[in-house]
Amino acid sequence: MSGYFISFEGGEGCGKSTQIQLLMEFLQAQGHEVLLTREPGGTHLGEALRNIIQHDSAGQAICSEAELLLFAASRAQLAREIIQPALDAGKIILCDRYLDSTTVYQGVARSLDPAKVEAINRFAAGTVRPHCTILLDLDPETGMQRIQARSEGALDRIEREPLEFFRAVRQGYLDLAKSEPERIQVLDASLDPKTLYQKIRDVIEPSLT
Amino acid sequence: MSGYFISFEGGEGCGKSTQIQLLMEFLQAQGHEVLLTREPGGTHLGEALRNIIQHDSAGQAICSEAELLLFAASRAQLAREIIQPALDAGKIILCDRYLDSTTVYQGVARSLDPAKVEAINRFAAGTVRPHCTILLDLDPETGMQRIQARSEGALDRIEREPLEFFRAVRQGYLDLAKSEPERIQVLDASLDPKTLYQKIRDVIEPSLT
Repeated sequence: MSGYFISFEGGEGCGKSTQIQLLMEFLQAQGHEVLLTREPGGTHLGEALRNIIQHDSAGQAICSEAELLLFAASRAQLAREIIQPALDAGKIILCDRYLDSTTVYQGVARSLDPAKVEAINRFAAGTVRPHCTILLDLDPETGMQRIQARSEGALDRIEREPLEFFRAVRQGYLDLAKSEPERIQVLDASLDPKTLYQKIRDVIEPSLT
Repeated sequence: MSGYFISFEGGEGCGKSTQIQLLMEFLQAQGHEVLLTREPGGTHLGEALRNIIQHDSAGQAICSEAELLLFAASRAQLAREIIQPALDAGKIILCDRYLDSTTVYQGVARSLDPAKVEAINRFAAGTVRPHCTILLDLDPETGMQRIQARSEGALDRIEREPLEFFRAVRQGYLDLAKSEPERIQVLDASLDPKTLYQKIRDVIEPSLT
């Protein structure tokens, strides 16, 4: 039996982590084998890159091209070392960010050439693509308020971007969802977590039975 | 006045470091402003990636795709943060490895699709290309003997590849040099260091006067 790969996308503070955790517990209770992972990260290499991307170079300007290539390197390793074997083993994979994050953050908000971002995404991910993507849509003002409340002001390199950046991210995600309505399910992340969780289950469950 | 960018290429143990040092001292004595850098590395980000590529993941298998993307990320940052400003300031840049290393190591010896390697190289380097490349050609047996003698057996992740890998690297470099004979100057790295140094000077000096 082949597995099922679900990625979660959305701007900062949209509640991905909470929802992924809830869904994982539900799926495990249902008897599924679930692999929880994230991007950047999820492998020895990926976690080292995550640290560089988020913290190590704080105060230094990583150029947009290098940033994209770091995300892509993390993804290349994650796809081959973790996700493909888990799919082959019939697991359900829940991944906190994947392909669409670089399509939107670097290809839209950072204004890199979308065709080049797509080519590098394709090279990095190979054939390892999500069967379903949950996009948690939230207005950036609310998202940043949530982030600031939970981080007590200690924002990482990307969280320190101006609101304009996150508005571009949101629009980029919504445009992408319109272009791939079968794969990308847009849900309202301003709902209370329990209601949102139920909506995620409503989307996911038919595919798993 | 615009600067001049010289890259040095070759297999392990070919003597790049020694020759770059000699050439730098000569050019400085001639009154040139010289920037010495290397790849992967040369920036805060690049040196962190160099450490990951050479050591951090020893024993872990970094996949070929991720390896290429890490080299490319280091290059993207080096080209924009260091080399382009140095060119604008009229300096001579001596760079220990650049574009051709990934063309050959990943595109030939690791058997990635050369067209994809070329596209990622192009994205990473942008318009920052060497005016001249010195290829120090050496048979891999001699190169590995030199490496083993100086490292006392403590080889890094790439140096531990089998001889077959370095034979493919050498052939890849020679084929590349044939395709770009204007830019890439092939010199015999089995010569004694002083003779080789004089040959490098003979190649470089006409371009700098």
